[in-house]
Amino acid sequence: METLVTRYGIARVEGDELAVVDLPFPNLRWLLKAGRTLAEVEQAPVTRRLPKTQLDEVVVPPLGLDTTVWGVGLNYHGKAALTGRPVPTEPILFLKPATALAAHRATLRIPTDLTTQFDYEAEVGVVLGRPLSDARPEDVWDAVAGVLAANDTTARDVMKATGTPTLAKGFPGCAPLGPTMVPISDLNDPNAIPVASWVDGEQRQNSTTADLIFEVPDLLSWLSRYVRLEPGDVVLTGTPPGTGQDLNDYLRPGQEVTIAVGGLVPLVNTVA
Amino acid sequence: METLVTRYGIARVEGDELAVVDLPFPNLRWLLKAGRTLAEVEQAPVTRRLPKTQLDEVVVPPLGLDTTVWGVGLNYHGKAALTGRPVPTEPILFLKPATALAAHRATLRIPTDLTTQFDYEAEVGVVLGRPLSDARPEDVWDAVAGVLAANDTTARDVMKATGTPTLAKGFPGCAPLGPTMVPISDLNDPNAIPVASWVDGEQRQNSTTADLIFEVPDLLSWLSRYVRLEPGDVVLTGTPPGTGQDLNDYLRPGQEVTIAVGGLVPLVNTVA
Repeated sequence: METLVTRYGIARVEGDELAVVDLPFPNLRWLLKAGRTLAEVEQAPVTRRLPKTQLDEVVVPPLGLDTTVWGVGLNYHGKAALTGRPVPTEPILFLKPATALAAHRATLRIPTDLTTQFDYEAEVGVVLGRPLSDARPEDVWDAVAGVLAANDTTARDVMKATGTPTLAKGFPGCAPLGPTMVPISDLNDPNAIPVASWVDGEQRQNSTTADLIFEVPDLLSWLSRYVRLEPGDVVLTGTPPGTGQDLNDYLRPGQEVTIAVGGLVPLVNTVA
Repeated sequence: METLVTRYGIARVEGDELAVVDLPFPNLRWLLKAGRTLAEVEQAPVTRRLPKTQLDEVVVPPLGLDTTVWGVGLNYHGKAALTGRPVPTEPILFLKPATALAAHRATLRIPTDLTTQFDYEAEVGVVLGRPLSDARPEDVWDAVAGVLAANDTTARDVMKATGTPTLAKGFPGCAPLGPTMVPISDLNDPNAIPVASWVDGEQRQNSTTADLIFEVPDLLSWLSRYVRLEPGDVVLTGTPPGTGQDLNDYLRPGQEVTIAVGGLVPLVNTVA
């Protein structure tokens, strides 16, 4: 079942309603940090019902705006083939600054003095439900609470100039996540999660995580050797081909970007 | 005046005493996030006095263990000269994972399966007192609350293998900060802050920030163009020559590392 956070509290999507539930956490990150699970959101008593059509007005970021977000460079075979870059032998990892995080429907303000190549990246974000340290690949899925949609926006020219993903992907309020999250157990196949994007309604990306170079178990296992992952941390798993870089068509003011992951409510943001 | 956080609350160093004060914040990061200043710690009424000799037993991390910490690669002329690497034309920036942060006197547990070249780096940490975004160099010092000591430990072999500072410098609990912090106004010369290190009492590093390639105003101005810095965020300013890498003598279990910045209480940690 899809879960989210509204101005009235944690909620679940029930048909065409949002059912706000009675749980004492400001968002899903704090619920997970407390050792609780998304299953509790599905079972908790309902305190208020809202029409799902009001989602855009009431939703707030599912994990707050101060969680740890890891990203990975070039992680789709399709993207590697398109760019002609060699398939990496180890994941290329980076951290997002917390100030980069943004909400569903937030306006993305491009620093036009820094970039003329601001690009979308549709990604599956994997959310930790338990701490993960030096884990074997076969133990990774048990530590994952669920997935959400992410737009790992990237200034291609800043990436080229600085060589630093954290800066090219770290502009204030330019990395939206959400609006909803779904537990792993709800996915048809956790190893083939659909991920797609549209710009002003025109489809740009369309793939699944079956095309990942480093699959979720291997990626998180590898990362967990170096660092400790915590409940509520997010790992963005890379983007498939079809970005503006691939099409030589970057985002412009006024455009609307839509990211769809699995069957979740799509993540929509407008460029300022 | 030096400020710190004890198990009894925020405190200031007064001669050979620690004066715990009456301020409603769990640590200095939350005080700064609330728009308050270190000057308030100097003026607040005292609720308890402890002998300074008890510092190691009562001190806790001054900014907590979940703040944003930026680091910069190669940023001392002396280090660049020693290594023969060219002086960078732009700062090389990275983020620390929050799980890497550690307390004064915490034991640093080296993942021996990953590294045989675990190294100390004495650094001046600059702590933001106000948000900083797209700032001019001449406006930077006004946004800085103070400085603290940091040991930006680095697995040199992991750095070489992954090319990723965030991983080479991100092992759980291996990046200690503190134990105290001092406001900029207390420094004799904010542009020449002493920084030094010792291993088992033998001095290894001895320099000042006068040797920085990117001085604090330029470094934070540059960073603030790409990302927004927040009160309580820390920017580590790089390390001078004399690391284990320079001496081909890496840290071994049982060794004690001491970092001294300005006239602050030294930061001491033991390697497991």
